[in-house]
Amino acid sequence: MNEQYKAAAEFLSRRDCFDILTHDYPDGDTLGSGFALCLALQQLGKKARVITTSLPKDYTFLQKGIVPQSFETQTVVSVDVADEKLLGCHREAYSGRIDLCIDHHMTNRIQAPLRLVDGHAAANCEILFRLFKVMGVTVTREIADNLYTGISTDTGCFRYTNTTSDTLRTAADIIDLGCDTAYINKVMFETKTRKKLALEREVYNTMEYCCGDRCAIIAVTLDIQNKVGAGDSELEGLASIPRQVEGVKIGITLREKSTGEFKISVRTDGDVNAAEFCSRFGGGGHAAAAGCSLKGSLEEVKNTLKSAVKDVL
Amino acid sequence: MNEQYKAAAEFLSRRDCFDILTHDYPDGDTLGSGFALCLALQQLGKKARVITTSLPKDYTFLQKGIVPQSFETQTVVSVDVADEKLLGCHREAYSGRIDLCIDHHMTNRIQAPLRLVDGHAAANCEILFRLFKVMGVTVTREIADNLYTGISTDTGCFRYTNTTSDTLRTAADIIDLGCDTAYINKVMFETKTRKKLALEREVYNTMEYCCGDRCAIIAVTLDIQNKVGAGDSELEGLASIPRQVEGVKIGITLREKSTGEFKISVRTDGDVNAAEFCSRFGGGGHAAAAGCSLKGSLEEVKNTLKSAVKDVL
Repeated sequence: MNEQYKAAAEFLSRRDCFDILTHDYPDGDTLGSGFALCLALQQLGKKARVITTSLPKDYTFLQKGIVPQSFETQTVVSVDVADEKLLGCHREAYSGRIDLCIDHHMTNRIQAPLRLVDGHAAANCEILFRLFKVMGVTVTREIADNLYTGISTDTGCFRYTNTTSDTLRTAADIIDLGCDTAYINKVMFETKTRKKLALEREVYNTMEYCCGDRCAIIAVTLDIQNKVGAGDSELEGLASIPRQVEGVKIGITLREKSTGEFKISVRTDGDVNAAEFCSRFGGGGHAAAAGCSLKGSLEEVKNTLKSAVKDVL
Repeated sequence: MNEQYKAAAEFLSRRDCFDILTHDYPDGDTLGSGFALCLALQQLGKKARVITTSLPKDYTFLQKGIVPQSFETQTVVSVDVADEKLLGCHREAYSGRIDLCIDHHMTNRIQAPLRLVDGHAAANCEILFRLFKVMGVTVTREIADNLYTGISTDTGCFRYTNTTSDTLRTAADIIDLGCDTAYINKVMFETKTRKKLALEREVYNTMEYCCGDRCAIIAVTLDIQNKVGAGDSELEGLASIPRQVEGVKIGITLREKSTGEFKISVRTDGDVNAAEFCSRFGGGGHAAAAGCSLKGSLEEVKNTLKSAVKDVL
């Protein structure tokens, strides 16, 4: 593993003019990884920018300190992107062009000449913190804010089973570098917009149980999204709701992306492998959190999932 | 500080037949401290038992490994108890009899011959982990479970502002000793009963805003409590809901205890003093969390509170 870090550090120090790719429906870990790496490269005197499909309002603070730069792309690095499919609207532009892939998804499928993939890291930002040490980057307060945001959001603030003692020690080191945990924890874990609250209320009403209450399903239909006026930032985090119910082993969230097209998020308690479950439908992810896409009517998609749940429970 | 740890360790090694006192309405930190210390003392061949006013269902697993013992009390140790008043029904029996007070409340008022009070520790269990090292106690899986429960619950799973890098490193060391974080986090932070979920749904529907949306109010009426069949354990934690809404400075929760009688919980973001607000109605508490009681119809009580909110905002 150490050799992979050295190779990645050597590659980054040799190259310039970086496009840093993040995954679509961006979360704290892909954005934190992207902006942290951009800040680090700019600190080393290089040109770099972060490519995102969107930047939810709560995450805009992560850009602090980034200098906007114009250049012709020479190097492409992806962070926290498990598959080129997840580049969203940027997929076509960057397909087959990724030079270095930095990721913590065991199931990473990106074919890049250089890969730094560590499935043991709870968050991709853990990998970046280690990489920065090898690169000799000074972890400033702004970089620390990005890294802490990635680690804390990908572990549910150290609550999820992916959290290891290494995760906590890395976070401790990052806190000592001056990151603003009070602000980040408040924004990420304490505060809800009124829209988000309205959305949760609507979504609670769609909760249904199957397989002797060991599976719970919620559906975020277009009707609900339109009624509440909810955007990506409100929709994030809903996937944890169904699995929270006592006795539930598989929690499934259906998000209608367009009529007849659903993004499925699966959360499990560890007994069932979520990534394996989702791979039945061409998806993937982690053991306790994974996703896939399905087409059909709401009822059809639900029935498909319920049958699959019966198989694994 | 080191001297205090040594003195406490020396005292514990010299004495026997321990009653370990916890505070009333016990939480994870007082119970985790109590059972961890009891396990440690029994490991050293001493007689010890934990005195509690109650043991909520979710915490019963903390007793694992404790050997019930009969003896005449020779030594009294309090853990996480800031004041003798907080001993509840055991106050009379133990008043003035505490030999060693181990606590992390800056405001600790217990007059004991020996005190190990460290206000910098986020949780009392952090202090015990350090003390066990000095005592030469082997931190078994059961002791680790207790310590992790105390630290994680008193920090909202490392979310609250009391969490330091030391807290995270201590938790990391405890995780390496084999504690079952998956189980503990799930029970303490993830799991909601279906009743709790149903209750939250009902309560969300009562949310109203005033004072330019800077105040949010929810009402847990008897109708709702009866409809859902909710008891005390479901009602716990609801008071944090209204203050979580973005922009809300005062969150108020009305819980109808009997017809025309309401328990009021006030949570603020720090700009408004909750204890002062509640003292207008004969109540009290902390700067960010306080309570009082009010009589009248739901509308009357709401109007009284709204007028008072107008005064302070």
